[in-house]
Amino acid sequence: MSESTQPAAAAPAPAPKEKKASKKAAVQQFTLKTPKGTKDWADKDMVLRNAIFDTITKVFKRHGGVTIDTPVFELREILSGKYGEDSKLIYNLEDQGGELTSLRYDLTVPFARFVAMNGIQSIKRYHIAKVYRRDQPAMTKGRMREFYQCDFDIAGDYESMVPDAEILSIAVEGLTALGIQDFTIKVNHRKILDGLFQQCGVKEEDVRKVSSAVDKLDKLPWEDVKKEMVVDKNQPEEVADKIGEYVRIKGSFKEVIDKLSADEALMSNASASAGIKEMATAYNYLEAFGVTKYLSFDLSLARGLDYYTGIIYEAVTAASAPPPKPTDEELAAKAAEEKKNKKKSKSKAAEEDEDNSENVGVGSIMAGGRYDNLVGMFAGSSKKNASIPCVGVSFGVERLFSLIKARAGLVDQVRPTSTQVYVMAFGGGPTWDGFLKERMAVAKQLWLGGIEAEFLYKTKPKPQKQFEAAEKTGCPFSVILGQDEYTKGVVKVKELGLGEEADQGVDVPIAEVVDYLKAKLAARSNGVEEAVRLLTI
Amino acid sequence: MSESTQPAAAAPAPAPKEKKASKKAAVQQFTLKTPKGTKDWADKDMVLRNAIFDTITKVFKRHGGVTIDTPVFELREILSGKYGEDSKLIYNLEDQGGELTSLRYDLTVPFARFVAMNGIQSIKRYHIAKVYRRDQPAMTKGRMREFYQCDFDIAGDYESMVPDAEILSIAVEGLTALGIQDFTIKVNHRKILDGLFQQCGVKEEDVRKVSSAVDKLDKLPWEDVKKEMVVDKNQPEEVADKIGEYVRIKGSFKEVIDKLSADEALMSNASASAGIKEMATAYNYLEAFGVTKYLSFDLSLARGLDYYTGIIYEAVTAASAPPPKPTDEELAAKAAEEKKNKKKSKSKAAEEDEDNSENVGVGSIMAGGRYDNLVGMFAGSSKKNASIPCVGVSFGVERLFSLIKARAGLVDQVRPTSTQVYVMAFGGGPTWDGFLKERMAVAKQLWLGGIEAEFLYKTKPKPQKQFEAAEKTGCPFSVILGQDEYTKGVVKVKELGLGEEADQGVDVPIAEVVDYLKAKLAARSNGVEEAVRLLTI
Repeated sequence: MSESTQPAAAAPAPAPKEKKASKKAAVQQFTLKTPKGTKDWADKDMVLRNAIFDTITKVFKRHGGVTIDTPVFELREILSGKYGEDSKLIYNLEDQGGELTSLRYDLTVPFARFVAMNGIQSIKRYHIAKVYRRDQPAMTKGRMREFYQCDFDIAGDYESMVPDAEILSIAVEGLTALGIQDFTIKVNHRKILDGLFQQCGVKEEDVRKVSSAVDKLDKLPWEDVKKEMVVDKNQPEEVADKIGEYVRIKGSFKEVIDKLSADEALMSNASASAGIKEMATAYNYLEAFGVTKYLSFDLSLARGLDYYTGIIYEAVTAASAPPPKPTDEELAAKAAEEKKNKKKSKSKAAEEDEDNSENVGVGSIMAGGRYDNLVGMFAGSSKKNASIPCVGVSFGVERLFSLIKARAGLVDQVRPTSTQVYVMAFGGGPTWDGFLKERMAVAKQLWLGGIEAEFLYKTKPKPQKQFEAAEKTGCPFSVILGQDEYTKGVVKVKELGLGEEADQGVDVPIAEVVDYLKAKLAARSNGVEEAVRLLTI
Repeated sequence: MSESTQPAAAAPAPAPKEKKASKKAAVQQFTLKTPKGTKDWADKDMVLRNAIFDTITKVFKRHGGVTIDTPVFELREILSGKYGEDSKLIYNLEDQGGELTSLRYDLTVPFARFVAMNGIQSIKRYHIAKVYRRDQPAMTKGRMREFYQCDFDIAGDYESMVPDAEILSIAVEGLTALGIQDFTIKVNHRKILDGLFQQCGVKEEDVRKVSSAVDKLDKLPWEDVKKEMVVDKNQPEEVADKIGEYVRIKGSFKEVIDKLSADEALMSNASASAGIKEMATAYNYLEAFGVTKYLSFDLSLARGLDYYTGIIYEAVTAASAPPPKPTDEELAAKAAEEKKNKKKSKSKAAEEDEDNSENVGVGSIMAGGRYDNLVGMFAGSSKKNASIPCVGVSFGVERLFSLIKARAGLVDQVRPTSTQVYVMAFGGGPTWDGFLKERMAVAKQLWLGGIEAEFLYKTKPKPQKQFEAAEKTGCPFSVILGQDEYTKGVVKVKELGLGEEADQGVDVPIAEVVDYLKAKLAARSNGVEEAVRLLTI
């Protein structure tokens, strides 16, 4: 679905220095790192990303979606011929005998393979999984080679534009559920684009290259795009000018449809008029779903992938566009700064991996469209499901992650663990054994009661160490086993994090501690749930 | 963690016949299949597997676990030298320029790399993800090449045997939460094994091969294992006999510890006595956690992986062992049956991929142990965290899946979608337009209210078609837009699946339908939640 929802690479973890050779035979010497273009996810980032997945999954399920899981690698021939020029970015597995296989490049082609292979006539499926692209930093700086896609697709031969409208509703609901406020979904239609190029006199064989020039209108002024068409792509100037009249059209869905429907030249073209009629139909449904206010009909939106055949769309936010060009003063200041910092030596690898994210926006955060012929490429035209039409959307999860993580105060509130209770022991004197077994028994009681609990793996822990460990988890409660009280069958439950107004705690019989804590915890969410809740605050 | 928690391959989907070449240029000809040893997950299987993941994840979180996500491939040198003979099963990525990388073989080595790379002193982490092994059907029939592992590991220098005991508690809680009733966890200790081999006179260089012979005692009688030691592995018969005295010891944890502690010969060996003392310490903690009843101390348990250094364990159920050998009558009957069926031709591929699951058990459903030196292999001995000790457990998710799926009646109750409400329109006559936009608007209301809802993508759907579609999802309610009622602001909410005693439905004002349904649905779980609940019924 989404050649352009690929995330920018995060700054790579600093490569640790080479260790000195050790005498121990078992010790091997490594540059300890993940492969180029990949990263580990951990800690709060992981919780936040899972919260994003959970939130989007809920939206997908709300629309009747089922999920599938396909292998990370496919037969090589399944992938070949699907991605045009980008096929060179496909990771191949070594030929170790047997079949030739490659890592999946996206989730759409495996989905089409799945639909064709199983003779499926209709399905709403979602799939959240990693995909692989051998992007070269030199060519496309800062792109990840392993990243997540998060797709919802509807396959089936349905009433025109009904699933398309629902997909756009899903896109809006997904972004809104993630607390994204200021997004715009640009929409266009491949048939309208094809028709207007024909109408303007572009030759069939030139459509793709003209289309890719038009797609740059979100980053370049029309004059630059026109120059590219005329000089680089050999289009007559009058053709370029005609195209320019059209592709600079953008505005509300209704306005643009009215404008195009009134354009006799365009309406005389079969492809364009079919596209315009479909968009008019879609408008009705999008109104019913209440999502038209998020849409901008933008004739410059072309989208790269070959396989789109109908409506296409992508969502952008203020952060999607590159920042304004720096002024001369800013550039001079930056150069001075860089000179100053030059003493800090940089490893070659770090330089090569360096992200130029300061010069680019995060790009589109959601993208997709209709692709009616992809399943047919697998099924063969002789088969009944030769051309199961499909429409889908892909959320740019890792771009969304960057936007969400940047929200003020959010990361501070995220907890890496779900721990709710820290089980401690207080006591002293020569006969005091630290109540390790007793802490274990209480922890077990809590676990069996469904309560997240930890204790210090130490025989005789000091109170201070236990409070520090509890604080590190951010858990709201402690259960304290006092040397004397515990033998009387009582523990103290204390609320943590109250600072100066320290809670004195409540004595609770051991047998009742699970119920007592469950009642206390009922109003609280935890872990990913907590983070999911934070997303929309 | 788990060289032996690998799932048996499910029966492969039948390969579709080759399609006839088509005239359409875009149509390519494929054998539509997933690569050998891989499969698609979909439909109810997917829901059930996610329910298993969710259930185990809850247990992991309850114990303070954080999760990490490492890349699917690692630098090749990270993996090399970690898996002994099995290194030949590692999938390499093609050398397309740049670094040499391979798909991960398990989650343990990437975890150790992560701990070493980030200088982590302590962590409890869980990781549920796919791993890759190029098992050859000819060598190990019916093994998957892509399968899930589901690991929890505790890294850190803690009080002896405390984390080990908690890991075993997690194992018990995990299996119990999945509704597995009849499991036994076999435990042993590498130091005891090493010590008893020394004590029996096995040479240092022969320990591994003797150990691997011993590991077969769960499948073979002692006489066969002895023969292997003496004939194939060149051990003197008296050495084999001495070993036989020990490795046939098994029983309750307490019994075996008492027996071993009283064995002066064994206690005089430094390694064995250290192991026995550790197990005695562990026993205390396992008692506190109330899990000793699930344990069987079994001196024949050896586990294959080189990296274990302390306690080792694996869980088996009745289904883990191969079924009893068939009698001669049964064999004759089977041969006759096969002869009869021979007319049904089998493709070569299907034959090659064929699972011989009828001849093997599902194997262990959980396995793990302590590995104190793996992080040190990465960190280098000069570094502070050179030898962060670790202990972990890996659930054999796909084996558990097979056991759980086989439960009577379970699969029937699992729903692939989470849909709760089907939005329908009833009406007729020449002016009736099918209320498509109105159904959309009501569905949108439900979605915004967090309710899973679908409607038929058809302009004028017949009531029957709508009921059929609703029934297919298994959703409990329909909201019906009646031609007359809807214009008066009222819809009918009807409970589905009541059969003969059909619910007549309740009229609800449109503005109140979300609240009405939320109240109705509050007592119900759905989708994966529903399946999670089903697991323990």
